[in-house]
Amino acid sequence: MAQQITSRTTDFSQWYNDLIINGALADYSAVRGCMIIKPYGFSLWENMQQQLDKMFKETGHSNAYFPLFVPKSLFEAEEKNAEGFAKECAVVTHYRLKPDAQNKGKLVVDPEAKLEEELVVRPTSEAIIWNSYKNWIRSYRDLPILINQWCNVVRWEMRTRLFLRTAEFLWQEGHTAHATKAEAEQETRTILDIYARFVEEWMAIPVVKGIKSAGERFAGAEETFCIEALMQDGKALQAGTSHFLGQNFAKAFNVTYTTKANQLEYVWATSWGVSTRLIGAMVLVHSDDDGLVMPPKIAPLQIVIVPIFKGEETKHKIIEYGNKIFQQLLQAGIRVKFDSDDNNRPGFKFTEYETKGVPIRIAIGLRDVENNVVEIARRDTKEKQSVSIENITSFCSQLLIEIQQNLFSRAQVFLENNTKKIDHLADLNEFLDTKGGFALVHWDGSSETEELFKSLAKATIRCIPLQPIAEEGTCIISGKPSHQRIYVARAY
Amino acid sequence: MAQQITSRTTDFSQWYNDLIINGALADYSAVRGCMIIKPYGFSLWENMQQQLDKMFKETGHSNAYFPLFVPKSLFEAEEKNAEGFAKECAVVTHYRLKPDAQNKGKLVVDPEAKLEEELVVRPTSEAIIWNSYKNWIRSYRDLPILINQWCNVVRWEMRTRLFLRTAEFLWQEGHTAHATKAEAEQETRTILDIYARFVEEWMAIPVVKGIKSAGERFAGAEETFCIEALMQDGKALQAGTSHFLGQNFAKAFNVTYTTKANQLEYVWATSWGVSTRLIGAMVLVHSDDDGLVMPPKIAPLQIVIVPIFKGEETKHKIIEYGNKIFQQLLQAGIRVKFDSDDNNRPGFKFTEYETKGVPIRIAIGLRDVENNVVEIARRDTKEKQSVSIENITSFCSQLLIEIQQNLFSRAQVFLENNTKKIDHLADLNEFLDTKGGFALVHWDGSSETEELFKSLAKATIRCIPLQPIAEEGTCIISGKPSHQRIYVARAY
Repeated sequence: MAQQITSRTTDFSQWYNDLIINGALADYSAVRGCMIIKPYGFSLWENMQQQLDKMFKETGHSNAYFPLFVPKSLFEAEEKNAEGFAKECAVVTHYRLKPDAQNKGKLVVDPEAKLEEELVVRPTSEAIIWNSYKNWIRSYRDLPILINQWCNVVRWEMRTRLFLRTAEFLWQEGHTAHATKAEAEQETRTILDIYARFVEEWMAIPVVKGIKSAGERFAGAEETFCIEALMQDGKALQAGTSHFLGQNFAKAFNVTYTTKANQLEYVWATSWGVSTRLIGAMVLVHSDDDGLVMPPKIAPLQIVIVPIFKGEETKHKIIEYGNKIFQQLLQAGIRVKFDSDDNNRPGFKFTEYETKGVPIRIAIGLRDVENNVVEIARRDTKEKQSVSIENITSFCSQLLIEIQQNLFSRAQVFLENNTKKIDHLADLNEFLDTKGGFALVHWDGSSETEELFKSLAKATIRCIPLQPIAEEGTCIISGKPSHQRIYVARAY
Repeated sequence: MAQQITSRTTDFSQWYNDLIINGALADYSAVRGCMIIKPYGFSLWENMQQQLDKMFKETGHSNAYFPLFVPKSLFEAEEKNAEGFAKECAVVTHYRLKPDAQNKGKLVVDPEAKLEEELVVRPTSEAIIWNSYKNWIRSYRDLPILINQWCNVVRWEMRTRLFLRTAEFLWQEGHTAHATKAEAEQETRTILDIYARFVEEWMAIPVVKGIKSAGERFAGAEETFCIEALMQDGKALQAGTSHFLGQNFAKAFNVTYTTKANQLEYVWATSWGVSTRLIGAMVLVHSDDDGLVMPPKIAPLQIVIVPIFKGEETKHKIIEYGNKIFQQLLQAGIRVKFDSDDNNRPGFKFTEYETKGVPIRIAIGLRDVENNVVEIARRDTKEKQSVSIENITSFCSQLLIEIQQNLFSRAQVFLENNTKKIDHLADLNEFLDTKGGFALVHWDGSSETEELFKSLAKATIRCIPLQPIAEEGTCIISGKPSHQRIYVARAY
């Protein structure tokens, strides 16, 4: 705590790391590329989980749990999926350590405990799950299967960033099985809508809903739907994906069902996920040079009360007064903390909760007690005001709603101001090299051109928007005809 | 579904597996020793988690998340802990697969992607966590740290059983750091009490609280406290453990703090856990030859309503009537399902919900509608009665409480009837060979004798009870003097 935070203009990337560490969201670990989610960060994740889980359950999904390990022979069954993840797989090859004969007190891998078949630590669970669905599905009566799981996955990334890209991360992965193509496609859309609604309404991050181009599609999917958000440095971040998997996994694992008409058909599949990466997005969208800024709906702590006293006499009065307010807010279901700890001075506490992004700070001095008021400071705008304690609970509840809305509209304005129609490659590069943002460009739809975005503009196609920006034009790279604009950006 | 369930007397072990599979709690997977927790089983786990999590938070604990992997050099730091788990560790040695040149479409481990240091998949997280606490603790102000995590762990067991012993399992592991020995010891007891209260009040399983003998102690602990339960086959099951770790991990990872008096001291530690194994205990304690019997407080489904109709005309009436009751129960916060599915006949449904252990079944036929009653069947006693719908909600709420209590007292009586003072080795063997149960025996307290229990009676010391059964006597094996009786049993 109380380390200096690098400013955004000085070093955006360092600013981000400083916020995560100083804001007590996470810490580095002894394992390359793996992080520790600290209690404050985990509490944020719990709030996110709780809401998402509710939305999944309201739409008929249940949670389950499948094994962490995928035997190599299952992993390779769906070839595109296997190819996509093979390069970043942690592989378990042995099941025992033994004392090191050369080195007392040390252990070595026991060569006699080599597994007959290597186990891949799941980078995603389509393979292990569809291998089970094979046994669970016989007839149309067994469908749909609507299962989600909250778990850890491992992808051995070479360059890692706290929350944004770690070797191990936490996520939810939904895996559904359907009798018809239409039903599976509908499921993909339903989930995309849940993701968009959650990220916009709960995390206060506006998103663009779209379809991934072939080059950005999930390995093994027929179609990947996504939500894309824009960070303060003008880079895009993929915030969630929902995949229509067609019959690829059903064919790879031979999962068929008997229709009402007694025909044998392959099952249709979807999969979808969001991860702790969303926490990185929250940090990158809302925070400022003084620290994190938490959207009230998911903030671990919505309000902190800090008493300001000198000497024991005033202390007693202020604590009593503060405690009454604390109890009122608590009873209203607000996540509130009364920090009456003697060890730290108020100024220290102010900085701490500012760094941690607590939406509302209530300060109470002797004069406030005498006047039946408190000082309320908003984290988002830094505005302070003196407020009567008479309707303090409804005032605070209302203010939390206001802060949530303000964060969203601020981010919405930023998104709009940094989304620009661009028609020439030189302009695209200039746009991305300076402020950055979403470039709306024409694209001929080919994979060749998609590759050129990477080499010529160091950018990727973020998505083809679901609400089409229909407009005749010519591809910014190939000059070939195009019928709508797509989103291109540099991305996390 | 609808497979035959083996009876307990025919084959207890097969009965157990049949219940898990037919009751849709779990399924076997393609990974050796790893199981799939199916939605019905996972919902049970979620209910258990929710209550335990609440109890942990009420006592000041927060959740966090530490990495899945433990670098070998950290794993071996606390020698006893390392020695205890080395023989059952899944080890990650490589981080990439590559196409198999000999075999198109197949993958092989890429030998060039060998890790410099092997990673152990956590069998328990003391090592990785204390390596972090080292950086988090400077002064007494940083203490206590009260952290819990819900996660998966892997122990490569040779003989596995669904829920009871699987290579991967889900659990919670608490890891706390304290300034004083007394505080750490108090924490160990606080948690033991939470475990006992949860298992007794929520799972309706009576337990004995005790201390483990040296031979059964957690590897790396100074003292292991435990709760032990008795299964229907007379075997004991360790249901939860809470370890006082002394300063062992603090010393292994060099975790010190500055006291108020400005002295440098090693930190005191505890760790504690319960796992999905508890689900196995629930099955083994409450179920009968017809299927699972769920304690209402944790049952995924507390009540199921099954309409019984012939023809469309009666159907409409019955559905409308049933739906009204369903809505009432739902609004009372009861986990209720109205199974009006046309595909299956009532008899089939009756069997299904009986197998799944749903505490209350409400059946509704035409005559019930005419008489403003329903037929209510208890899963625990199989009693049926006709109940007026006038106060149906309060009747059901009350009945759920009654069933919960009945399950507990039934198990309590069983525990008492199968706990026996035994004073001769021959009697001990006869006791364990026939009905089984908890034998209360005198023990001289030595490790040598502890070993002899295993070889001479194929039994283990389950615990030295916290409520001592003080009584002078002589050790059942060595004949040496003993001052109290301890629990000995064969165990899962």
